[in-house]
Parts: sequence; structure tokens; C-alpha cells
Amino acid sequence: MAHATRPAPRFATWLIDDADSPINQALANPASLGYGADLVGLGGGQPAIESYPIEALERAYASAIREAGRAVLPYGATQGLPSLRELICERLARRGIQAGPEDVVILTGSIQGLHLVGRITLDHGDTIVTEAPTFMGALAAWEDQQPRYLSIPVDEHGLVVEGLAEALRRGEPRAKFLYLLPTFQNPSGVSLTRERRKRLLEIVHEHDLLVIEDDPYGEFWFDQGTEPIPPLRALPGAEEHVVYVGTFSKILAPGIRLAYAVAPRQIVEAMLRAKRGVDFHSDSLLQEAVVRLMRDPQFDFEAHVAAGRALYRERRDAMLDALETTFDAETKWTRPAGGFFLWVDLPGGMSGEAVARRALAQGVSVLPGHLFYANLDGGANGLRLSFSSATPDRIRDGIKRLKRAIDAVA
Amino acid sequence: MAHATRPAPRFATWLIDDADSPINQALANPASLGYGADLVGLGGGQPAIESYPIEALERAYASAIREAGRAVLPYGATQGLPSLRELICERLARRGIQAGPEDVVILTGSIQGLHLVGRITLDHGDTIVTEAPTFMGALAAWEDQQPRYLSIPVDEHGLVVEGLAEALRRGEPRAKFLYLLPTFQNPSGVSLTRERRKRLLEIVHEHDLLVIEDDPYGEFWFDQGTEPIPPLRALPGAEEHVVYVGTFSKILAPGIRLAYAVAPRQIVEAMLRAKRGVDFHSDSLLQEAVVRLMRDPQFDFEAHVAAGRALYRERRDAMLDALETTFDAETKWTRPAGGFFLWVDLPGGMSGEAVARRALAQGVSVLPGHLFYANLDGGANGLRLSFSSATPDRIRDGIKRLKRAIDAVA
Repeated sequence: MAHATRPAPRFATWLIDDADSPINQALANPASLGYGADLVGLGGGQPAIESYPIEALERAYASAIREAGRAVLPYGATQGLPSLRELICERLARRGIQAGPEDVVILTGSIQGLHLVGRITLDHGDTIVTEAPTFMGALAAWEDQQPRYLSIPVDEHGLVVEGLAEALRRGEPRAKFLYLLPTFQNPSGVSLTRERRKRLLEIVHEHDLLVIEDDPYGEFWFDQGTEPIPPLRALPGAEEHVVYVGTFSKILAPGIRLAYAVAPRQIVEAMLRAKRGVDFHSDSLLQEAVVRLMRDPQFDFEAHVAAGRALYRERRDAMLDALETTFDAETKWTRPAGGFFLWVDLPGGMSGEAVARRALAQGVSVLPGHLFYANLDGGANGLRLSFSSATPDRIRDGIKRLKRAIDAVA
Repeated sequence: MAHATRPAPRFATWLIDDADSPINQALANPASLGYGADLVGLGGGQPAIESYPIEALERAYASAIREAGRAVLPYGATQGLPSLRELICERLARRGIQAGPEDVVILTGSIQGLHLVGRITLDHGDTIVTEAPTFMGALAAWEDQQPRYLSIPVDEHGLVVEGLAEALRRGEPRAKFLYLLPTFQNPSGVSLTRERRKRLLEIVHEHDLLVIEDDPYGEFWFDQGTEPIPPLRALPGAEEHVVYVGTFSKILAPGIRLAYAVAPRQIVEAMLRAKRGVDFHSDSLLQEAVVRLMRDPQFDFEAHVAAGRALYRERRDAMLDALETTFDAETKWTRPAGGFFLWVDLPGGMSGEAVARRALAQGVSVLPGHLFYANLDGGANGLRLSFSSATPDRIRDGIKRLKRAIDAVA
């Protein structure tokens, strides 16, 4: 048998036939995510490298291994450690979310939560409602079911909920769920107002819609005097329709992959069943270490989160200031009250993709806006800028480089 | 709006309509997996709790966090750390598998590898070829696609490959892949002979079939003088048809969730694309810790694996001896040369399920054989017994309890 001359095995047809989408190309390209030493990284959603609690993590792992190793190193429960689920509920209660440990599923990163909800609800070609723009990474979670996306615009007050109401009234086919980031949205930085949250919940009840509330940034509010807006899941009547997804990626570190979902009981059961076939359970040693870190008397977890708020506020301010002094009135941008990102609208007709490509050559990474539209039908002159991972000096330098890229494209 | 009187939201139909399968019930039931302090655990596939390298793990995590924390705590590459992929290739080379780091995908547990291969190859209702019996946990990975299972019997020499050849010759619909555990199989403990491995590969080439070789137990061979059989993937011509899945769960610890696949290049690309939508990447801190553990001059990794061999051999011997002295000729069992499991055939007509249920009441967990048949159409008088997690004394006690359960059912 002459293997060298045989045709490619037929099982690879799926891959050969299906060209990589722009979103997949962006996700697979490290430079677009802000890696590379000589690059100012305004592209990815990396938390500040200075924020990792190195010493506390080392203590937490050491004590987890030494004192609880034989308890947490065997196969564990799919739902996750009860002690971690309890601590998560305690923290969520401060933000107005009432839930018990039995309502929580520990996840191997937020994306797994999105994947599991998709897996238990979607049939091939089903419809998902998303914000336009939305977090592009989420879309990979549902790629297998090749869903249709019904995109509802976001304005400076968040999702245009009356646009949603109208689309649902018109609406066939029925959407399986609404996916949104109501607080300090990725990619725009805007937040859904209190009034719209209430109205959204009415619409959700009226149409019996399932909602995924993705909230990676909700704890990073910046501005004094503005009381943080409660999550959707905290509103009365939300508990049976909202799957709330939270994460340790931004307040601790993303490389360790730890997140959680709070969901209605039936959804919890279905997610657990699906999770058994995805990774059986999330790393129990990591869970135990995070429990110990949160209880460590030498480490003030809440002060650590507050320090993150201050750090990212300083970076946001540096970016807003640099934009203000560098760009003229033809370029617009959002002024987020929290989170990691802001959105730039370039002068009409200028291609965000061309600018992002030229920016890489100038040594700054930004992401072109069209990637954040589920149907790739918007954001042509937009850019997403992240202020989370670069220092204020680097941010100022990055905005100058971006200006040079824009001038070169113009 | 009166929430209390509203009907259950319609999105839960999937769960309500679909009754839990016996396999899912078993996976969800901790007792069936051998937990519980007063229970002799012969049910689950838990490694020996005594085998966890606690001190070396503590050192490995401490140095990974202290010396590489800021490098591995950000979001990482989906394929995994190059250093870990290189170490995996070095170890695989000793077992005859030639592969480079670019052929390896780091996984969050073996089950994720099975899930990803399913996700990139299966359409709804497609056919998968499995051994009969096979590892029940694997089936959860493909539940979403509701595949049909073509089951090929296993005898004392492993998969009956001529039975496979015949089924494929007859065969419509075409199978998307063959899933098997050729070495110290779960649940039977038997291994595919060298001759059958060669013949299987001929059949695979003839029918252009994709194979998943699941090999969690291959390093635990027990018997002196019997050279270990090389994995399927080590045979000439296997590299373009076999996805080899290996794991750290049994040689290190399962609670940390770390495994890997070696796959043809196109499959690697497709798995990475799918993995981005499942958990984006596996825990990088864990990967770095395992790299440091494998390179730790104070810890001999290969001696650790060899100690596992000796430990499990002693437990297998204890179980075989206890079976020999407790049961008469009407009861048959396999005599595995390695791995974690053996298979018992109860006297004809006796229900494995009834015995397993009665055994729990007697304080010993075993799993009924029918769970290991993908179509639940065999193994009615079978039991899977695990000798991996209980000490020899507990094993002897457990077999006595099992005998009482059998006598009570008879």
C-alpha cells in the first residue's frame, strides 16, 4: 500500500470544504490578541499582568495540595466544589443576586457556559439573538450548530430593547435564547440602563425567552458617585429566565480557566449532563486553591478587586485623554464607566480592517469592528480598543501609533 | 404578572421530554463511582489515592507560580504549552509513537478529546463503531449528536476485527469513526493482540476509517517478561488515520484534568478550532506545573509511573486471588495483564444490575455490565470490577461482600 500517493482521508472533508471564518482567523492569530513584545497591545481582553496575585496564589495552591490534596485530586463532582459555590453565592448576594450553591455550575471558563447552554438548547440552524456589536469569542461556542443570528443594535444606553420587542413580535423563527453583556459591554463599553433592564425583563417574560447574561466586567466600575447597576439576574422575576455567567478570569487570572453559571434548576441539570461529556468536571485542585485564596487572612480578596478597579480606571482615563488630544471631531468614541474596552467610530468610509492591519505595522494591535457583528454586516468603520493590559504610558504611545496608521490609510 | 402560576418555560422541553439514560444516571450517582467512606469502591476508575505525588506537585506549582506566573496566567494558546507538548512527544517516542509537538493538542481531560473529535466529524444520527463492551463515559461526549452505535464484540484477544471487517463490508451507513481502547480495555481489561492490531490497520486503510485510540491505561502493564504491546498509533501507516488520546489522569491525578491528543494535521487544526468554542485553552498554570514536575530533579517521574505499575499489579493479584478462593466454576472473569479493571460474567441468567444494587447494600460498589454496551443490548449478567482504588485488604473484603450479594440474589 503506497500511503504517500493516497488522497487525503475523506473524514477531513468538513475542514476542507469549510473555509475559516474571519472571526476564527482573528482568534487563531496571536498578534491580533495583543501578544508580541514590541507591540502595544490594545487588541485583546487580557487583564493587567501586574494584577495577578502571585504570592497569594502560591500560598493557596501550597495549602490546597498539602492539606486537601488527597480529597481534591481524585475525580470530582461535575457541579464543582460546594465550598466554592457557596463563596460565589456570598459574593453575588452583594450585587443583589439571590442564589444557592445548588443553582451554581462551576465552569472551565465562561466560554464553556455559553457552549453548554447552546448544546442543551440549540438544534441545527436555530436562531440566537445577539447584540450588534457582540463579543466575537462567544460565537465560537455555537459554531457547531450553525445558528442564525438575529442582531439587535446597541446604542449608548445598551441594547435597543424596543428593537428586540419589535423583532420578537414579527418573529419567526422563534429564538432559542438572547445572548448579551449588559454591563460594560464587550466590545463597546456601554451598559444597559436600569430602565431598559426592567423593560427587557418584561419582554423576556412576554416571549418566554431564555437569556444568557455574560458578565465578565461587571465588578470593574470606575466612576465615583455612580452606584453600580445591578445585574439582570438580580431583578425580580429574572431567576427563571436568566442564565448568569461570571468568571474569575478578569478578577484573578484567565490562564487558570475558572468561571461559573447561575441558572434555573432545569437548566442546571441539563448543563451538568452536557458537561459530563465535555470535561466531566472542572479542575478540583484549582477550585480548592481559589477557595483558600478567597479565605486567606493574609490576602484581602475584595481589596484586590478594588485595586483592579483603580488600575483599570487609570488606564481608561489615559486612553480617553490620549484620544481627546490626538483625534479631531470626525472620529467618535464611547466613554465607558467601567470594563476593559471602548469603541471607536472612524470617519465615515474609512475601513476599520485597513486601519487595524496598518496599525499592526505601526506596532499597535487593535481589532476591526466588523469582527464583532455576528452576521459580519456592520462595524465597517469601527475599532475595538482595549485599555486593560497596557500601562498608561504604553496606551498614550499606542494611540499615537494608531493615529499614524489612520493617517496612512486616509 | 403572576410568575408562580406560569407553566414551565418552553426552553426546558429538551430536558423534560428526554428521560435520563441509565448511563447518565450511573455517571450522576457518586455511590456508583465508588465514593462514600463505608463503601469498598470497586465501581469507579479512581486511581489509588496513595499514588498522588503530593510533595512534588506542591514544589511544581510553587515554582510555576513564582517563576513563570506572569507568563502563564494570561490567556494562552489553544494548542497548549510547547514545552509540555515536547515532553509528551519524548515519552510517547519510548512507546514507539513518532510525533512532533505540532501534532499534539493539550486537552482538559480525555473526554474533551473524544468530544472534540465528535464535534468535528459527526452529523446528527451518524454512526460510530464501538467495542462491545466499551467505556460508558465516552458515550456522553457524543450524546448531543444522537449517534447510532455499531457495536463489535470484544473477546479475550480484544476487538474481533474480522467482525468489524464484515460489518464494514455490509456497511451502510458509513461510520464516522471507530472508538476503541485497545490496551487493558475499560471495562474488560483485555488487550488487542499484535496480530489483530496489524489486521485492524489494514481494515482501517481499506475503508478509510478514522480511529480514536483511547489509551488511559497503556502504561500500567504488570507482568514480567511480557513486552508491552505498542499502541495502534505506533504502527506504520497509522499516523494519518489514528487520533491517539493519552492522559495524566491515571499516572498523576484525575482531579486536575489534563490529557492530550496526537492527531493527523487536519484533525489537529479542526480540533483547535472546535476547542476555542469549548474552553479556549486548557489551564496554562497546570500545564507549566506538570512540565516542572516532569523535570524536577528531586522527583523521578518514570520511577513514579513504575511504582504505579507495582501498586496496581499487587491489587490485581489480590482481586484475582480473592475471586479464585471465593467463587466457583460457574462464575468467569478476565485476567488482565494491566490496567484498572476486570470483567466478571455471573452464572447465566443472573442479573448484573440486581447484583450491583444488592452489592451496594452489602457495602461494595461494582458496576453492572449492561451500562458498557452502547446500545444497552448486552452484558446483562456482567459486572465491571475495578482493582485500582481499594487496598488489597479492602479488595478481599469487597469480594466477600460481593459474594454475599450474589448469594442473596441467587
